Amino acid sequence: MNLQNVIKIPALDKEVGRQVDSYIQTLTKPPGSLGKLEGLAVELAEMKSKPFPVVSPAGVLVFAADHGIAEEGVSAFPQEVTLQMVQNFLNGGAAINVFSRQIGATLKVIDIGVKSTINDKDLITDKVRMGTGNFFIEEAMTKVEAIEAIEIGMRQAESFIINQGVESLILGEMGIANTTASSAILAVLTGKPIDTLVGFGTGITSERVLHKVDIITQSIERRKPNADDPIDVLAKVGGLEIAGMAGAMLFAASYRVPIILDGFISTVAALVASKISNDVIDYMIVSHQSVEPGHLTAIHALGKEPLINLGLRLGEGSGAAVAFPLIESATRMLSEMATFQSAGISDQ
Amino acid sequence: MNLQNVIKIPALDKEVGRQVDSYIQTLTKPPGSLGKLEGLAVELAEMKSKPFPVVSPAGVLVFAADHGIAEEGVSAFPQEVTLQMVQNFLNGGAAINVFSRQIGATLKVIDIGVKSTINDKDLITDKVRMGTGNFFIEEAMTKVEAIEAIEIGMRQAESFIINQGVESLILGEMGIANTTASSAILAVLTGKPIDTLVGFGTGITSERVLHKVDIITQSIERRKPNADDPIDVLAKVGGLEIAGMAGAMLFAASYRVPIILDGFISTVAALVASKISNDVIDYMIVSHQSVEPGHLTAIHALGKEPLINLGLRLGEGSGAAVAFPLIESATRMLSEMATFQSAGISDQ
Repeated sequence: MNLQNVIKIPALDKEVGRQVDSYIQTLTKPPGSLGKLEGLAVELAEMKSKPFPVVSPAGVLVFAADHGIAEEGVSAFPQEVTLQMVQNFLNGGAAINVFSRQIGATLKVIDIGVKSTINDKDLITDKVRMGTGNFFIEEAMTKVEAIEAIEIGMRQAESFIINQGVESLILGEMGIANTTASSAILAVLTGKPIDTLVGFGTGITSERVLHKVDIITQSIERRKPNADDPIDVLAKVGGLEIAGMAGAMLFAASYRVPIILDGFISTVAALVASKISNDVIDYMIVSHQSVEPGHLTAIHALGKEPLINLGLRLGEGSGAAVAFPLIESATRMLSEMATFQSAGISDQ
Repeated sequence: MNLQNVIKIPALDKEVGRQVDSYIQTLTKPPGSLGKLEGLAVELAEMKSKPFPVVSPAGVLVFAADHGIAEEGVSAFPQEVTLQMVQNFLNGGAAINVFSRQIGATLKVIDIGVKSTINDKDLITDKVRMGTGNFFIEEAMTKVEAIEAIEIGMRQAESFIINQGVESLILGEMGIANTTASSAILAVLTGKPIDTLVGFGTGITSERVLHKVDIITQSIERRKPNADDPIDVLAKVGGLEIAGMAGAMLFAASYRVPIILDGFISTVAALVASKISNDVIDYMIVSHQSVEPGHLTAIHALGKEPLINLGLRLGEGSGAAVAFPLIESATRMLSEMATFQSAGISDQ
């Protein structure tokens, strides 16, 4: 199969963008004085092909999966924490639950490859396999499995967006050791030195960072992923939740739904999606810059800039949810502010 | 009178801050992974002397006044725009109305010195005088008037906070030419060169920026404000809304209500308040960094750092309202997240 042919991503509506840009000049404020919110409003209008785009309600899809590479001692937490955090999501106690409630977003959790069987009516179980292989010693998954994970992401995003009437999409993830997989993918896709991309993840020591760099370096040498083939990269050093997120992004873009990127893992998934269809980038907003050193590299590889920097490094989609109200402010500026003419105010 | 004796600002509750800091370490996330939100949560707990502080509902007080210095051609807009924007506020069409609605905040507008009589049941009229004098040729106001404006701010904040049950306070302003007054105040209070503080305000040309610098420089030479006496500075080169905001901040701090600072004018008002009672600083959060060059100088003079930078330069309290949800996220993190123990998750 050829995913590029499956996904048709419409062009941005630059004409409505120009109209919105002109309209913003008529709102009762000095021109340009709402800074980045003005640019955001234009981008959202272009994405949605609407002069008054809305982003609420947002939808949050959290993909969870385990990573064989966790065996190599690259994370501060044991692998069972993936499962425990999924249960925390289902009980509503994680950061992404809290911030999703704050912004009125629907949250769905998808088990795309946790290494345990979880029975819970609120969990969407759509597993490719019980966690990836340890890519230090074998491929993380087959190419067929990588494609299947992307397709699951597309399908889950489709039913979520359509059934829930979601106006913007936040992708979150849970998977112990997934900063290791993401760093490996990013190193392969950008060619940047691994030690400039790898960070403390959930909170490992400096010594363990060196170990993590070494494991990634050796794994890439051993697996030899083909930088020109995103499916090969996912199969050799990727993660199931990363593939799922990439798929969900591709569907969202095809449906003109803005994608609000979170931190490192989310942005690496975005880069993978862009290697499948470059146009998906047009539908992405980078909500924040995380502490993880590779994040800015991934953001710049997409040609983007982050909206804010709060020193976050949690993942789950939490930073995107925290930043979401800023994006909503841009849409409300457009739809609710008076114009100089309607308010009878002297222009400059 | 001695304002310092009128206002009693309680010390931060460092003990509850320590408790909250420890509690944050037990929440289901890697330690430190919520970055600036964690520090904010501790600060808010210390301000409110509560382990689970809340900031909603926020209240927004917008002080409006005219400036005689507008006669010198320092603004991109004619003076009548102050009145017109007040009417826009009352009709709900300005940026601060939009963002106040977004965050569920009550908004009150106070005419503390607009150079026109406005009859509107929703406007609080508590005027010191019909705009300030042109401080290029005379003092902006008398010292008695400066103190009166501060007292109005204190009194209006008191009734607003108590009657509306406001949990955090955003101060906004409207006053054509008030970046000129604010730049003058800031130059006097910090001793920094005027040309490093003055910017494009609402959008003047580079030529007019030079003119603005020249007017401020000459005004300070002529008026000779005493940098050690904030009332003298307000009287000689200040503004009525700036004095009112300072007063409102002093009351809020005395009542343990967090003050969410907006942009340049708001932060200069904060600096004036700090010269009356330095402890007021403990109750301030700098929501964002504006484009106006003097803003960062004012922020650093308070010993603070801005939460975000969206390239805003609108005023009205708009940036504080836009950033408010981030501050609320910090409080929700505290009150709604599960702990490792309650969620049964393996710690590091």
